[in-house]
Amino acid sequence: MLEHGGNIDLALQQFGGRLEDWIDLSTGINRQPYPVPPLSPRHWTALPSCSETKSLQEAARQAYGTRAPIVALAGAQAAIQLLPRLWAPGQARILAPSYNEYASVLVAAGWDVADVADLKSLAGADLAVVVNPNNPDGRRHEPDKLLALSSCVGRLVVDESFVDATPRLSLAPEAGRFGLLILRSFGKFYGLAGVRLGFALGSEADIDVLATQAGPWPVSGAAIAIGRRALLDRDWAIKTSARLDRDSRRLDALIQSQGWTLVGGTPLFRLYDTGDARAAQARLATARIWSRTFSERPGWLRLGLPGDEKEWTRLAAALAR
Amino acid sequence: MLEHGGNIDLALQQFGGRLEDWIDLSTGINRQPYPVPPLSPRHWTALPSCSETKSLQEAARQAYGTRAPIVALAGAQAAIQLLPRLWAPGQARILAPSYNEYASVLVAAGWDVADVADLKSLAGADLAVVVNPNNPDGRRHEPDKLLALSSCVGRLVVDESFVDATPRLSLAPEAGRFGLLILRSFGKFYGLAGVRLGFALGSEADIDVLATQAGPWPVSGAAIAIGRRALLDRDWAIKTSARLDRDSRRLDALIQSQGWTLVGGTPLFRLYDTGDARAAQARLATARIWSRTFSERPGWLRLGLPGDEKEWTRLAAALAR
Repeated sequence: MLEHGGNIDLALQQFGGRLEDWIDLSTGINRQPYPVPPLSPRHWTALPSCSETKSLQEAARQAYGTRAPIVALAGAQAAIQLLPRLWAPGQARILAPSYNEYASVLVAAGWDVADVADLKSLAGADLAVVVNPNNPDGRRHEPDKLLALSSCVGRLVVDESFVDATPRLSLAPEAGRFGLLILRSFGKFYGLAGVRLGFALGSEADIDVLATQAGPWPVSGAAIAIGRRALLDRDWAIKTSARLDRDSRRLDALIQSQGWTLVGGTPLFRLYDTGDARAAQARLATARIWSRTFSERPGWLRLGLPGDEKEWTRLAAALAR
Repeated sequence: MLEHGGNIDLALQQFGGRLEDWIDLSTGINRQPYPVPPLSPRHWTALPSCSETKSLQEAARQAYGTRAPIVALAGAQAAIQLLPRLWAPGQARILAPSYNEYASVLVAAGWDVADVADLKSLAGADLAVVVNPNNPDGRRHEPDKLLALSSCVGRLVVDESFVDATPRLSLAPEAGRFGLLILRSFGKFYGLAGVRLGFALGSEADIDVLATQAGPWPVSGAAIAIGRRALLDRDWAIKTSARLDRDSRRLDALIQSQGWTLVGGTPLFRLYDTGDARAAQARLATARIWSRTFSERPGWLRLGLPGDEKEWTRLAAALAR
């Protein structure tokens, strides 16, 4: 498996402690999750019906502000896995640095993959991949810029896994047009990554291929019930966006004492240049707080937001040592 | 989507009623499910860790009596979807009639697919597919026969989705050898199809490809927790196998009054030749009992087993009309 956040096994191996001792800030998963509603026995026992799956997809359309063709999958990752099924290999360019699974999956499927440093260098690619806002550095792109780009590339994949807290950045309302595929993650903003739920929005032809390739029943009954409820809860989304925005600034303020530089971030995580991320990670790990380093960028440390006051207090104490 | 059991939407459309009015006997899913244990918040919120996934896979190995390489996937169906990723297209033969997704997935991936009527006609195929015991007719094959076959074909896929109640038929103890791939379903025997969990067992090379193609986190936290608990519960499996065996004979006895012929079955479902399955389905449907017909075999009706005495009583009454 590639290097990822959420690799709590590694924290236990390297620094000890029990799973329940650790605060995992190595991901961008919201630590104040959407409350899991009571599930009916049917969600566990029965194969999800077409109408249940459709009602989940309709809830996602409402939440994302789109009427585009959509398919529910077991996480945005499941959509990434299927990208090579959509189009014959060619030249792909990825706006880098970014989520490392794209290059891995495309190279394995025979694509010629190049990293590029800015939007305009994507033009001309058979396939362009942009994560917006970007993981890990939070770089963001205005929807009109991406829309303009989409007419200069064969296909444009926009990964909006971290867009929920800044919905005005989303291209979802424009989904459906040829050549544009948008991926959404459910688990991050709603804090329920273990549920395994995500969506792809795109042209009818592309979504048909993804649905066929995923096969019947790609998403669990629990994911349908929880996802539907959560996606229709606009109040929770608005309050959560505001809280994440406040808390991300609170984290930046807390970090100032360290002399680290903010590289960027989203309301779900922050990326700091610490000079020596391994040392910073080890220091936090002695307080059983897990963070994300990047082997190719030795200064970078990514931190998710603490979930409650107890976690904030523990983080502040760990940073004050 | 292809014709499948569990299509309860169709029952509601054609015959009315509310979802909760219906007894769905259109599948082979056990209607006395394994009790879902309490789940910890972590199962919902966190990305499943490698060690959690490994512990699930180890539980499956114990339950299936094998030390072979194994991968957990979102249902046996997820493994079927990935078959074309394992091997370049060639000539596939399927022991028919059987589960219709094999032909569909393989044809779409460029395989030349033929149905054959007996085991020996599979010999010489690049890829042979046997469901054991078979769905829908319950035909079963001794493990030594299948093992002998495996040396006469390029690859042999044995789908053991319905084998749990008759474990001596399983080839899982022989898994690991080149050219043999075994698929297992969790949801049917454990009555938890909505969880979306299954396994593939095979050679290290094949399982590595399946794991890579499935990507990180293909299975939910809930599936890991529930699956692990259930698969390690040998007492429940033994009692359930005995109960299903009794109940399948009870269903055959009850059906005698109808003048239908038993075509075959497993402890999880029975297949009857009714003469006119559409009429039989409609008669049961007026009592809100849903069954499975097969458009290519107009006499065949497949029935799962009722779950409790109330369901048995309703079925008996419907049949007595």
